[in-house]
This record gives sequence, C-alpha cells and structure tokens, in this order.
Amino acid sequence: MLIETGAAFELVAVDLEKREHKSAAYLKLNPSGLVPTLVVDGEPFTETAAILMWLAEQHKEAGFDVAPGDRLRRRYLQLMLFLANTLQPAYRLYFYPAEAAGAANEAAAKGMACARVEAAWTMIDAQLADGRAFLLGDKMTAPDFLATMLARWSRNMPKPADRWPHIGAYVARMKMRDGLKEVHRREGLTEWISA
Amino acid sequence: MLIETGAAFELVAVDLEKREHKSAAYLKLNPSGLVPTLVVDGEPFTETAAILMWLAEQHKEAGFDVAPGDRLRRRYLQLMLFLANTLQPAYRLYFYPAEAAGAANEAAAKGMACARVEAAWTMIDAQLADGRAFLLGDKMTAPDFLATMLARWSRNMPKPADRWPHIGAYVARMKMRDGLKEVHRREGLTEWISA
Repeated sequence: MLIETGAAFELVAVDLEKREHKSAAYLKLNPSGLVPTLVVDGEPFTETAAILMWLAEQHKEAGFDVAPGDRLRRRYLQLMLFLANTLQPAYRLYFYPAEAAGAANEAAAKGMACARVEAAWTMIDAQLADGRAFLLGDKMTAPDFLATMLARWSRNMPKPADRWPHIGAYVARMKMRDGLKEVHRREGLTEWISA
Repeated sequence: MLIETGAAFELVAVDLEKREHKSAAYLKLNPSGLVPTLVVDGEPFTETAAILMWLAEQHKEAGFDVAPGDRLRRRYLQLMLFLANTLQPAYRLYFYPAEAAGAANEAAAKGMACARVEAAWTMIDAQLADGRAFLLGDKMTAPDFLATMLARWSRNMPKPADRWPHIGAYVARMKMRDGLKEVHRREGLTEWISA
C-alpha cells in the first residue's frame, strides 16, 4: 500500500527469527509484539487492517479507499473486518499452534486452524464467483492488499488459497501488479512470485 | 449503538440455544453463522466492529465517530481492530474451546484463551491509566461500545475485566448510561447490570 500510494516512507526490517519483534525497543512501539508498525509523526500506529484503511484515506488519489457514504462502504468495512478477525487469527493459530492449546496439542490445533483458514477462503471464493476483478468489484481497494498478503501466507499450506478457482484467477491478477513485485524485491522475498 | 444514535430499527432476536444462527434462513443473511446481522435497505451487513463504525459515521450528530482526518483517527482504527481481531477471537476460543484443538483438548484451550483475554485487558487498562473517561479520551466513541460488550462477556470468567483498576472505573461509568440499561431491558439480560 505504501509503494502503490507513492507515500514517502523508510522501511526498517524487523528480524523475526532473531525475535526483534519481542525486543524492549520494539515492544515500546508495539506492545503486542507483532509486525508491522507504521510510525507516523513519531507516533506508532499498529494493526495491519487499520493501517491499510488509513493509508487509503490519506491517499485518496490512489483510489483504494471506499469513503463513508459510498454505496460500497458497508461491504468494505465488513470485508476488512472479516479478513482481520476471522481469516488472519486462523492463520495465527496455524503458524503458532502452541498458542491454541499448548505445545502438547499442536497437531490438533494446526488441523483445526487449517480448516478455519480453508473455510474462510471458501467464503471469499464465493464472493469472487461473479467474475469481478477485485473483492469489491472492478476497482482495487484496501481489502485487496490484505487478502493478497493472506493468500501468500497459504503458499505452503495443504491447500494454498490460489487452488480455489476464483481466488486463483484473482491472485494471478494481483501478482502482475508492479507494487507487489516491488515489495518482494525490497524485502528480499523469493517465494510465491518472482520479483 | 442503535439505541444511543436514535436510529430506527427493529430487533429480531436470534435464539442461540435453539441454534437459530445456524438455520438456513439465517446463514443466507450471514454465512459465518454469527450474530449480529444488521439488515440495511434489504442488504445484510455483518461484523460487529464494522457495524459500529458505520453507524457512528451515519449518525455523526451522536458524536461517536472519529472521522478521517481527525487527529485521533489512527488510534480509533487501531483500537477497533485490536478489539475485533485480538480480544474478541480470544473470547471465541474461551467460549468454544473445542474449536481450538478439538473436544479432547478443551481444558488446555480454555486456559490459553483465558490468558489471552486477560493479556488484552491488561493492555487496555494501561491505556486508561491516565484517567481518561473513555478509551480515546474525554469523548465516548464507537470502540467504547465494543469494549463494553466484551467487558460484559468476562463477567463469569476467573478475572472479570472490571477487576483491573482503570477498567473497573470505566465499566462503572458505562453501566450508568441509559443506552446500556435499555439494551439490557429490551433483550431481557439480567446479569451484570440491573436495567
């Protein structure tokens, strides 16, 4: 979103393997110890979905916002929240299954989380079934950024999101965007698409 | 929020014990099978946090919105998302622990979920520590409705939210509101506050 809106920003990588997101300095910015954090005018701002909505508002000219009063506003808010509070937490428990019911029950937790991730993608696939290019219609909006990130997260799961027919076509379309290629390049991501 | 904004609406109770939220008719409105659903101009609208934000926007005169461009906008969005995707999903697994890692591991799942609920309230208590009346300052806004509902959900948990010192004062303040008393009366809720 930062790249596609043309916002001026500095990328500071947080090394999760070195647990930098749990360092005292980072926890001061983000007490939840999660990435990302956007620092705006010296003030930390967290929660991916909130950041996307705010950037879309701040950069209206980029066309990713669905503003209050727009006929799609309710579906925009509903979709952002669904991705943030249903799909994303299911991934959390898939990748950190010990958080669900302890280290002894990781396998069971992972299986349940996987089923929840898949159920959410089934619902999203149904929304794309009318042939729309993006989640809310012909126009790319903030939830498309979140959904694309979450689709990428499934790449090594038993059923990656792009195996659903309509999501497959959608993800292929998103992968052609320069902004997505550029973020792969800048962050050194090599899986999923080639930059 | 509907009562406090003075919006015209009709309440249709969904009997969870009779599993009416999993009936074919209800799933057509809300494929996730969750309450609530707000039907607006014949179109179903779901996700509690999304509904609250939308109602606040539609009824600006009620003063619960923090609009795009407002200096508190980032904190408003961040808080709504934190409540919706961190605190609320933890409650879900506390009340439906079999969803975490199966029926065999309910006790373990419930304990983990309880710890996550408590960790989230600890973070919220810290935000209230400066003596502010409401979550974002002196003015009641949409996240206060969501936080109050979630605080109520903890009433029979090992550590109810109002045991945290600042949340205790906050909840006591919220319980004095006519809107909250009225919703208890209309829905026949007898626990937590007397209507």
